[in-house]
Amino acid sequence: MSVTSWLRPATIARAHCDVPCGIYDPHGAVLAAKTVARMVELIGQIEGDSVAAHNKFARCVAVKEQHAEKVKREVQVIWSDYFKPEHLEKVPELHSKVWQLLKLAGRNKQSVDAEASAQLVAATEEFADMFWATKK
Amino acid sequence: MSVTSWLRPATIARAHCDVPCGIYDPHGAVLAAKTVARMVELIGQIEGDSVAAHNKFARCVAVKEQHAEKVKREVQVIWSDYFKPEHLEKVPELHSKVWQLLKLAGRNKQSVDAEASAQLVAATEEFADMFWATKK
Amino acid sequence: MSVTSWLRPATIARAHCDVPCGIYDPHGAVLAAKTVARMVELIGQIEGDSVAAHNKFARCVAVKEQHAEKVKREVQVIWSDYFKPEHLEKVPELHSKVWQLLKLAGRNKQSVDAEASAQLVAATEEFADMFWATKK
Amino acid sequence: MSVTSWLRPATIARAHCDVPCGIYDPHGAVLAAKTVARMVELIGQIEGDSVAAHNKFARCVAVKEQHAEKVKREVQVIWSDYFKPEHLEKVPELHSKVWQLLKLAGRNKQSVDAEASAQLVAATEEFADMFWATKK
Amino acid sequence: MSVTSWLRPATIARAHCDVPCGIYDPHGAVLAAKTVARMVELIGQIEGDSVAAHNKFARCVAVKEQHAEKVKREVQVIWSDYFKPEHLEKVPELHSKVWQLLKLAGRNKQSVDAEASAQLVAATEEFADMFWATKK
Amino acid sequence: MSVTSWLRPATIARAHCDVPCGIYDPHGAVLAAKTVARMVELIGQIEGDSVAAHNKFARCVAVKEQHAEKVKREVQVIWSDYFKPEHLEKVPELHSKVWQLLKLAGRNKQSVDAEASAQLVAATEEFADMFWATKK
Repeated sequence: MSVTSWLRPATIARAHCDVPCGIYDPHGAVLAAKTVARMVELIGQIEGDSVAAHNKFARCVAVKEQHAEKVKREVQVIWSDYFKPEHLEKVPELHSKVWQLLKLAGRNKQSVDAEASAQLVAATEEFADMFWATKK
Repeated sequence: MSVTSWLRPATIARAHCDVPCGIYDPHGAVLAAKTVARMVELIGQIEGDSVAAHNKFARCVAVKEQHAEKVKREVQVIWSDYFKPEHLEKVPELHSKVWQLLKLAGRNKQSVDAEASAQLVAATEEFADMFWATKK
Repeated sequence: MSVTSWLRPATIARAHCDVPCGIYDPHGAVLAAKTVARMVELIGQIEGDSVAAHNKFARCVAVKEQHAEKVKREVQVIWSDYFKPEHLEKVPELHSKVWQLLKLAGRNKQSVDAEASAQLVAATEEFADMFWATKK
Repeated sequence: MSVTSWLRPATIARAHCDVPCGIYDPHGAVLAAKTVARMVELIGQIEGDSVAAHNKFARCVAVKEQHAEKVKREVQVIWSDYFKPEHLEKVPELHSKVWQLLKLAGRNKQSVDAEASAQLVAATEEFADMFWATKK
Repeated sequence: MSVTSWLRPATIARAHCDVPCGIYDPHGAVLAAKTVARMVELIGQIEGDSVAAHNKFARCVAVKEQHAEKVKREVQVIWSDYFKPEHLEKVPELHSKVWQLLKLAGRNKQSVDAEASAQLVAATEEFADMFWATKK
Repeated sequence: MSVTSWLRPATIARAHCDVPCGIYDPHGAVLAAKTVARMVELIGQIEGDSVAAHNKFARCVAVKEQHAEKVKREVQVIWSDYFKPEHLEKVPELHSKVWQLLKLAGRNKQSVDAEASAQLVAATEEFADMFWATKK
């Protein structure tokens, strides 16, 4: 997420509920992407063939899976619930960017790949910037 | 869902998993939309101010909520996981149609409205047709 | 599922809710069983000892587990909510067939066995036939 | 649950997992049924038309729903995973008793009825007795 | 959350996983508390006895319940997983503060009370300050 | 759990709901801890490098994870919802004991360690004794 977006605490909130409560926040998606990247890093550090190593591997894969899924869900909620037709002028590539981001999250489930996870973090940060661009 | 799509059982399957296993099916989204419509209908038939009536109302609203959410999830999975760039030629409006469908599902959570639920059923059937168009 | 059952789209629906909304469908159970079989197949194709291979193995086992559980849940819902005492005449073995099907789903969790998964697909198709037999 | 069953702590456990770990316990089903009955009681005590009263009603209905569902799930797990063919001699009515119990749980979702909830408690206690009968 | 805590983006993260990945963040708890407060506000604005009003009431109570639960869960995770014995010097009242916060979240489930929800927001912000105090 | 606590069936119940319904029970936490211990035992018995062995390992780790999480959740609910300020006289170490128990549950997720799982069982039994001490 860009540093500037962090300087608007009053408007930061969390996407979630369809009530609508007007509370949306791309923060959760960015952190979930960073967690995916962290899991890829941790998996890369596992060594040996011990039970402890296998236990750690199984748990890191599960957390990676959950957080890649969380990226998808959080982004989809903001995309479908927060963004309005009038925002598309400011972010004309919104739909295709979201589509590619969700596909990238899927690839991060299917692989253990530091480059793919770095791309996922970058894509969620870009998504957060699109979100904040419409708040100006 | 169109009748013709029902005549292709061998390729019908269910969207779900990112493995990828190549199994996708818009059937679940259509049925979830029909369940939303059925709940709107049942809510409209509730009469009186008894505890039984309030129990039924609370349960129908909860089921409506869950199935509107299910519509969103099932459509999003097929959109992000099944559809590939090469499909966009055949269904050029895919992204905006999906976006509007998800918003319509949100409106069905927020309201108890027979017209909105009929639109949701139609939108999921149209989505199913887009899916099958790419299978030809 | 038998081909004939696919030719009755108007009455096909999905088991789910206890409202009751009168919407039941054995389709979900059959597809979940097919997904279990597909996971067994995918696991059998995994080769080597790479991180990618282990990631795929862990994910396939998790999907197998979830869908074997889904088979159990979908079948149990139709069994307990849809089937009425008057149906038992047409399907006198209903209870023991369901019991064996659920046990078979459990065995598919515990093993990675193509024969067991083929039996599970067959058992859910037989269950679907029992369902449709009561619809005639 | 009968008092005698409480005197066998060493073998008491919880149904849950298909591993199999050999740990099963009908205690959870009985308590979930008692919670359903408690919710029916609490709903009956709600008075007036205040926001607080409606808040409490909505929450009690939701808890009733969840615990009626929990009854169904816990009983189904023990029925399908714990009970073996050789147990059917001791509890020949197992299948139909379970079937009726699950239907009764469904009725408790659909109604707010002290008699139905008392029957559900009795049915889960009878199920627990059948379970313990096979442990002797 | 205090403004100063927002100025440390590099260390902000999300509590979640027990891996441990070293990623914790009280942000989610604060926002969940604000969502509870927003639901209390929305419930207070509902007027009339229409189906739409009842639909909105049911949904707001459900969202309030979920987010009060989310407050409890997020706080408990940070309390049990992030805080170490050496932190207790800096935040000697940690345990009793957390205990009272969780009880306050429970009261917000049981009531629709603007004062209680404002206290919950304040308590999560105080918890966030305790978290950041140990990061200095 | 101590044998004496088993002799009070009338007051045994299950922690769960915040309604409040006055129904709490440490039994679930103890059994979840025993399930963690059983999984550690089963993992230790797995031999060889077959697909079946890997399938079993993955499933046992997942069940261990879920039940360690269940220990945390069940204990946290009783701690925050059941225990009242007046109980602290009888169980002055309640907060720090709960804190250590939750940390121990986390360690059981991170490891496959018979000693750690035995400690977890003992800690939940001690927690159950604290619970029952306040019931006298």
